[in-house]
Amino acid sequence: MPGEFELISHYFSRPAPRGYVGVGDDCAIFSVRPGYQLATSTDLLLEGRHFFSDVAPQRLGHKALAVNLSDLSASGAIPKGCLLGLALPEGDHDWLQAFSTGFLDLAEYYECPLVGGDTTRSLAGLSISVTVFGEVPAGRALLRSSAQVNDDIWLSGELGAADLALRYRTQQLDVDPSRFDTVIDALELPQPPVRLGADLIGIANAAIDISDGLAQDLGHILKASQYGAQVNYAQLPVHPALQGLPLDLQHQAVLAGGDVFQLCFTAPPSQRSVILEMAQQHRLRLTRVGHITAERGLRILDEQGKLIEPKRGYDHFA
Amino acid sequence: MPGEFELISHYFSRPAPRGYVGVGDDCAIFSVRPGYQLATSTDLLLEGRHFFSDVAPQRLGHKALAVNLSDLSASGAIPKGCLLGLALPEGDHDWLQAFSTGFLDLAEYYECPLVGGDTTRSLAGLSISVTVFGEVPAGRALLRSSAQVNDDIWLSGELGAADLALRYRTQQLDVDPSRFDTVIDALELPQPPVRLGADLIGIANAAIDISDGLAQDLGHILKASQYGAQVNYAQLPVHPALQGLPLDLQHQAVLAGGDVFQLCFTAPPSQRSVILEMAQQHRLRLTRVGHITAERGLRILDEQGKLIEPKRGYDHFA
Repeated sequence: MPGEFELISHYFSRPAPRGYVGVGDDCAIFSVRPGYQLATSTDLLLEGRHFFSDVAPQRLGHKALAVNLSDLSASGAIPKGCLLGLALPEGDHDWLQAFSTGFLDLAEYYECPLVGGDTTRSLAGLSISVTVFGEVPAGRALLRSSAQVNDDIWLSGELGAADLALRYRTQQLDVDPSRFDTVIDALELPQPPVRLGADLIGIANAAIDISDGLAQDLGHILKASQYGAQVNYAQLPVHPALQGLPLDLQHQAVLAGGDVFQLCFTAPPSQRSVILEMAQQHRLRLTRVGHITAERGLRILDEQGKLIEPKRGYDHFA
Repeated sequence: MPGEFELISHYFSRPAPRGYVGVGDDCAIFSVRPGYQLATSTDLLLEGRHFFSDVAPQRLGHKALAVNLSDLSASGAIPKGCLLGLALPEGDHDWLQAFSTGFLDLAEYYECPLVGGDTTRSLAGLSISVTVFGEVPAGRALLRSSAQVNDDIWLSGELGAADLALRYRTQQLDVDPSRFDTVIDALELPQPPVRLGADLIGIANAAIDISDGLAQDLGHILKASQYGAQVNYAQLPVHPALQGLPLDLQHQAVLAGGDVFQLCFTAPPSQRSVILEMAQQHRLRLTRVGHITAERGLRILDEQGKLIEPKRGYDHFA
């Protein structure tokens, strides 16, 4: 088995990107452009909790970075670089090759170079820690706390697919397995709208990425902004694979299903046409699903105007 | 057991520091001063590998941040902020209270506010991931690759104590336990010279922090700088608790013992008096232990001029 340092350099080293110094040194060092601030976020992914032990390592590498890029987008930041901490049960060549390919391909696509990290041997399972950096125009980051009354509430992408895939994988669901094929990528290869957030600066008032379920994550915007919201269930962009499933299951998957990694944002009604044009440019589905209310609380209404009570989103300690 | 979000906010939330926005949002957002670059580093600490399960949580909180501050100092950066990823087997009140106290007290002391993070439940053991940010004057960071021939080699602090403590704890050593009392703090409460690195800019040519043993870490400077070094063992700042132990054990602890978190740096001989004055100002022991040579390789000589062959430093995959 190769030593730690050879492992790191073999699989993860790339030439230091232009303007980055100190890569492979004690610290990675880079500049933030004048007029910009640094945005940063970190996520821990643990085997058996955030991913299955048998997931394809290339997909895992992709997802480990994707979930962090989603946070950058939710703040309106453009990716700038990332750090990777990896605790591995063993130094497995094939695994590292595939994992690093998935990770680095996505990093390259979004110009988010891997500039440093830490690799160690784990005694119990695989842990992945990713930290991302981005640049955001100074003082203009998208926050959770800036929603305004009467703002439209928008979603990118679709809801429910990752949750459905998770239910299949954990055998909570006993239906036609062909449905699984259409949703597994949502769970294992999430495609957050990485460049959408930066384009929403000056257009959206507040934003968040959906990692723990729409109800819970929109709830964070409402709490931080000290307002409420009304969401019309019939307007929600539900993934087609959910059609025909029991209604209660659909509600759960759509409202409380996590691992979505799409944006929920609020914007004044005057921005509707701009946002719909943006959907065209980004080739993204952007859907208006409700509005912000002065009255506190999140009200989700079905087509008859009846309240739907979502169960809570994912809470690691619940 | 409280929910994840309450846990985080209860133990780790502090008012957002001046100039930091978005704390508690998808990203933490802050500015880097004009004329400065961002320096960043990340470390993963795993239960059973980097720390013992029964270590006092307050000490563990201190160490998790201290080992990262050490990396900032080695790059010449002043701390600016940090992120904490925590995977916990359970949401234990006393543990979180003590851990967060150790972490946040050190963060406050060095003005390195905790600006974000991620908390999750672990299925197997405790994992801690810390990312630190610092500011370093643009283009002037201390690198491993800038050592010059005839540079003096300097060390801060003392060597061997943490390694001795580790040997006691793992019962590799059967001597008077009173020695243990004098070295356990070196292992559990490392005190890296956090502000030294920034003061060495313009004085030192190259620097690294000693985490995997002097021989291995100095080896990184030599490899990156494409030079060699001669180190005189008799000049090394050996911790007094090692006195009287078998010579071979002393050599191992001093040359290959990890977890030191002190700086090794190189500087031209013309800087000697400046560096010794700096030692006074910082109340630090700074010791000149050898010099950089054009001839490659690290030669460590005993008092008779005989080569000492250190075993390799700590390698997580060796």
